Amino acid sequence: MDNAGNPQDVSVPPVEGVAGGGTAYGWIDGGLHGSNPLKGSIDPTEVPSADLLHVWCMPSTANVGPQEMPRPLEPITLLAGRNERESVQIAIRPKVSWGGPGIAGVVQVQCSDLCSTSGDRLVVGQSLTLRRVVPILGVPDALVPLDLPVTQISLLPGETTAIWVSIDVPNAQPPGQYEGEFIITATKANAESSAQFLGKAEKRQLYRELRNCLDIVEPIDGKTLDEVVERVKSATTSLRRVVLSPSFSEFFSDNGPVDMMDEDAISNLSVRLKLSLTVWEFILPATPSLPAVFGISDTVIEDRFGVQHGSDEWFEALDLHFKWLLQYRISPYFCRWGDSMRVLTYTCPWPADHPKSDEYFSDSRLAAYAVPLNQVVSGSDVPKDYLQKEIEILKRKTHWKKAYFYLWDEPLNLEQYDSIRNMASEIHAYAADARVLTTYYCGPSDAPLAPTAFEAFVKVPKFLRPHTQIYCTSEWVFGNREDLVKDVIAELQPENGEEWWTYVCMGPSDPHPNWHLGMRGTQHRAVMWRVWKEGGTGFLYWGANCYEKATVASAEIRFRRGLPPGDGVLFYPGEVFSHSHQPVASVRLERLLSGLQVLFWSNFRMFSWGHLCFSFLNYCSFVATIVSKSSPRLSAAFSLRMHAYIRKKFFVIILNYYSSDTSGNDLMLFGKFPSYVWMISDSPCIFLFVV
Amino acid sequence: MDNAGNPQDVSVPPVEGVAGGGTAYGWIDGGLHGSNPLKGSIDPTEVPSADLLHVWCMPSTANVGPQEMPRPLEPITLLAGRNERESVQIAIRPKVSWGGPGIAGVVQVQCSDLCSTSGDRLVVGQSLTLRRVVPILGVPDALVPLDLPVTQISLLPGETTAIWVSIDVPNAQPPGQYEGEFIITATKANAESSAQFLGKAEKRQLYRELRNCLDIVEPIDGKTLDEVVERVKSATTSLRRVVLSPSFSEFFSDNGPVDMMDEDAISNLSVRLKLSLTVWEFILPATPSLPAVFGISDTVIEDRFGVQHGSDEWFEALDLHFKWLLQYRISPYFCRWGDSMRVLTYTCPWPADHPKSDEYFSDSRLAAYAVPLNQVVSGSDVPKDYLQKEIEILKRKTHWKKAYFYLWDEPLNLEQYDSIRNMASEIHAYAADARVLTTYYCGPSDAPLAPTAFEAFVKVPKFLRPHTQIYCTSEWVFGNREDLVKDVIAELQPENGEEWWTYVCMGPSDPHPNWHLGMRGTQHRAVMWRVWKEGGTGFLYWGANCYEKATVASAEIRFRRGLPPGDGVLFYPGEVFSHSHQPVASVRLERLLSGLQVLFWSNFRMFSWGHLCFSFLNYCSFVATIVSKSSPRLSAAFSLRMHAYIRKKFFVIILNYYSSDTSGNDLMLFGKFPSYVWMISDSPCIFLFVV
Repeated sequence: MDNAGNPQDVSVPPVEGVAGGGTAYGWIDGGLHGSNPLKGSIDPTEVPSADLLHVWCMPSTANVGPQEMPRPLEPITLLAGRNERESVQIAIRPKVSWGGPGIAGVVQVQCSDLCSTSGDRLVVGQSLTLRRVVPILGVPDALVPLDLPVTQISLLPGETTAIWVSIDVPNAQPPGQYEGEFIITATKANAESSAQFLGKAEKRQLYRELRNCLDIVEPIDGKTLDEVVERVKSATTSLRRVVLSPSFSEFFSDNGPVDMMDEDAISNLSVRLKLSLTVWEFILPATPSLPAVFGISDTVIEDRFGVQHGSDEWFEALDLHFKWLLQYRISPYFCRWGDSMRVLTYTCPWPADHPKSDEYFSDSRLAAYAVPLNQVVSGSDVPKDYLQKEIEILKRKTHWKKAYFYLWDEPLNLEQYDSIRNMASEIHAYAADARVLTTYYCGPSDAPLAPTAFEAFVKVPKFLRPHTQIYCTSEWVFGNREDLVKDVIAELQPENGEEWWTYVCMGPSDPHPNWHLGMRGTQHRAVMWRVWKEGGTGFLYWGANCYEKATVASAEIRFRRGLPPGDGVLFYPGEVFSHSHQPVASVRLERLLSGLQVLFWSNFRMFSWGHLCFSFLNYCSFVATIVSKSSPRLSAAFSLRMHAYIRKKFFVIILNYYSSDTSGNDLMLFGKFPSYVWMISDSPCIFLFVV
Repeated sequence: MDNAGNPQDVSVPPVEGVAGGGTAYGWIDGGLHGSNPLKGSIDPTEVPSADLLHVWCMPSTANVGPQEMPRPLEPITLLAGRNERESVQIAIRPKVSWGGPGIAGVVQVQCSDLCSTSGDRLVVGQSLTLRRVVPILGVPDALVPLDLPVTQISLLPGETTAIWVSIDVPNAQPPGQYEGEFIITATKANAESSAQFLGKAEKRQLYRELRNCLDIVEPIDGKTLDEVVERVKSATTSLRRVVLSPSFSEFFSDNGPVDMMDEDAISNLSVRLKLSLTVWEFILPATPSLPAVFGISDTVIEDRFGVQHGSDEWFEALDLHFKWLLQYRISPYFCRWGDSMRVLTYTCPWPADHPKSDEYFSDSRLAAYAVPLNQVVSGSDVPKDYLQKEIEILKRKTHWKKAYFYLWDEPLNLEQYDSIRNMASEIHAYAADARVLTTYYCGPSDAPLAPTAFEAFVKVPKFLRPHTQIYCTSEWVFGNREDLVKDVIAELQPENGEEWWTYVCMGPSDPHPNWHLGMRGTQHRAVMWRVWKEGGTGFLYWGANCYEKATVASAEIRFRRGLPPGDGVLFYPGEVFSHSHQPVASVRLERLLSGLQVLFWSNFRMFSWGHLCFSFLNYCSFVATIVSKSSPRLSAAFSLRMHAYIRKKFFVIILNYYSSDTSGNDLMLFGKFPSYVWMISDSPCIFLFVV
């Protein structure tokens, strides 16, 4: 139940009868609140759209559902480095209904290129995209692409619709201040069907008139010239009437495709929303500083898209998924589960001697790749020494440092641990520097490594060494004891190339960071921050497409039973929402990217901010320690500007964590930092934290 | 967050790692659950609709929101007396997407008349209506009429849509078994726009071809016959091609309006849902046994519909509201609030000497009417003795026994109580038997009638006597102490014509019965049962249209700030949802009617069931005592059948109260009555209680 009521009202009713009665229902009958000047029936072409709908902006961390209540409209101001994506949301809610049955009305949303004063552009459709935020299980999550540069959206009575605006700043984009605008116009109920289309009755009338023309002229043979001329004149008159009828008026000056509608609909009645983007000179590195590897179930792809393992269509489908996910600066691996959580993982479905292998692994956006233990697509000619030959090829490449072997998911007993040892031994025999990755959350249950479960968990590296290089542990294990992280780190030998990675899955749950549906946007965004803050050097996520399986691409998305909604699902098949085959991202995937992008900057390590402690909501002792030193490689001026950018950028993001709680309770935490905080109004719902 | 997951799955995943890890995500990769045989792209004209969508039924007490999960499809069986309305819901949810962008697909819903074996009919559009359940603040509430007998509905991916089916059995309907069916068919994405309409490109092509024909034949004067014939033949060929093009194929056999689409769409691919209705011989009395008076704010009507007080349009608007609400077997009164909760209440906007007055007050469905203290529409010629003359006219009518005077809402202090005394004195001077109704929840605050607030509240009749006849108290006052009812009743003098009525408003809140949005359907239904069970002889509700005011009919519905959502709002302006001016009922209003209809039968008082105690959830000591005796006036056979009908009807309704809790916890209460209970499957989600 949303009890929010009508926050835009000014006065509070005199609620009487706290002792057990009273209705207070008379309080408002004296006069009208608000100043809606509308009367009678509504023609959206004659009334300012602002009288018909609310338009306002929300940060990308906000979950803007149908019950989101309107806020004041303020211009959007964003900051972005080059090669960075920034997102923001536009919310629209009807004040009245002016449209056809079942809907409040149709709005047209048009957006312009973003232009700088020096004439540079961020082009709509390339750098600027619009997606509609569609609820999944009632929670705003799926981002379904909208037409560009003009789109039409149906609004429902009493419901807020959110549009997700993303700007991708190209690598080579000249820095500067870019301005653009969104033009939102209430239009007559489906302008398409009423203006552009011919209705059935109209069409039947047209058919009859044309038939009539035909009947007049068709029995022409053997007629006299006069008779023919008379008949033709009669038919011509009919035909001319048809051609000049209002049905075709839009084509009267038609010497080619003329499409006036879009321009027509924009008028001084529209709501105009300015967007200002500052593009900084700094270029976000292509290669992530923190490898984040994400699983894609190949069997889910095979079943849902009906592609047979190893067929051309199968390779195409995997290729599409790989390339689509790379844009999110994560490193995909395909995964197939065997018995007892044995996994076959591979980033490239082609073997190492295939040209695609180098193309995949050399991609600068790919930070790590999984090498499969067996041939992914078995043929009749698989050599016995397949693995050895693959490794021989790969280990001579410069991208070999990205390689890892992920063999088993969460071993539970001695037998499973032994399997890992055996497989790892074979791999290390072919390449001593190969990295084996093992995910785990406990030691072997049938041979306790220590008296308590946590101590046993900590002892796993000692038990597995040297058969694992990447010790990948569940964040769930720490519960609220984040201090235990130091025990894990103390056991590792980074000097011998050992790494600590982490993962999230069913847990940890709220209030910790994870990607479950229904968590706050800042929890989604903070998953990768947590890795960085804890000192992990990599991250693994088990599944990005692990919805319930189906045999048809457009089957309803169902989350797997027993998993928290959203767990293992970061995008959806496009076919569920339209005829497009492009995957549809979740807002959680976009927030993952937002969180990751911040970490890219940590490579620079050139700032000196001291330590800043902040505590996330109930996320006990999540201490973000920002330590950095000025880089002697960069000029002082550059460093200063970078400093200012990062400072603004980073704290804007951190503080969204707080401001996204609409109850405002989170903001109370600011009381702890009174001297650091002031609010600015240059961006909707964003608070700037100045140190 | 709906965590329901996929209840139709059979197996439960082996969730591992209760000690702090584990994902269990491999569990389902081995095989497919369910037996969806679809592959590739989907053509709804070639696939059984049952493969594309779930269809199932829900009782009218269920709040069927977008996240409602599918259940098995079973036929609907209903019972109704004559002159009774019964409702049930049909839920539809897409399994896959087959439609246009943004929707999962379009379904056509068609329903047949209900026919008895003897050929009697309940006609679609008259006795059988379909309405779509539209969420308000996210809670399914508004019932927006659908076209009949065929309607098209767009389904959204991953969302359940509910259709509210109501059957009104006419007074004279022959009893018997009536059968009908709903035919639900997935159709091609908007059949209207794709098949019936001409798209823009198609239209432009058509225009060019017709222009071309004209160009060929237009310069005809002075041409030879051969030339003319050749040109005409060329044009005719073009024209024939146009006329015979697929754009017009639907008219090829067109000798008048032929609309094949509806019939075409129904095939053996459709989902067919049988509805069986037993119409019993018993006729629900037209006049309610329990008067329930409901306020309608005239100022809300004036503002929203832009009608000036006293104008012809104003009378029309009030007349529409009065007549529309009467179908719900409640007695409307219009209300205008003055200062300090003084109220001007009137059931008929016309004066007593106007023909409309008798028409309104004599309506057998009206159980009580409010007489205003002053002329509602003041003119220059209001006589000084207006009230006296009105009463003189009314008190001679047979409907005078329905009259009441409602003067002040919830007096709080001596001055307000004195105002009531003065007004009542004047009324009683003109008619000693006039009934003055006073709502209250406390005694005068500035002259305590007793040491405690509740004792003072109980003493109000003593304090107000003889200036009030209908003591109308807030149910809120009792809190969980329903036993205190006896104290109120003990103070009254029914032998002197004093009555006890009750009201609900902001309170009582959950788990007590009320009409707030988000309460369970059985709480909505039980409001009137509580009145009857406590021994009240009437009921008052403060407002049925008291949404936030606006100056345009289609303005978004906003609930008044400070009131629980839904409080004071039982229907909505039709203009919010479509172009219709008919009000749109809430499901809460329908459940009010369901609850009231049960009470109509209590008039018969001819059963002997003994006492049955049941306790509602946390609704402490809500004891329903069913005492009745066989009526000597009726035949034994009739009485037996009536007995069976009422028993089934009443307990089905009572037990919906429990079964509507989807967690099933309520059903635990049945443990208290093991020998009385068994479940039957003749109706979805309905449990029969046999005593």
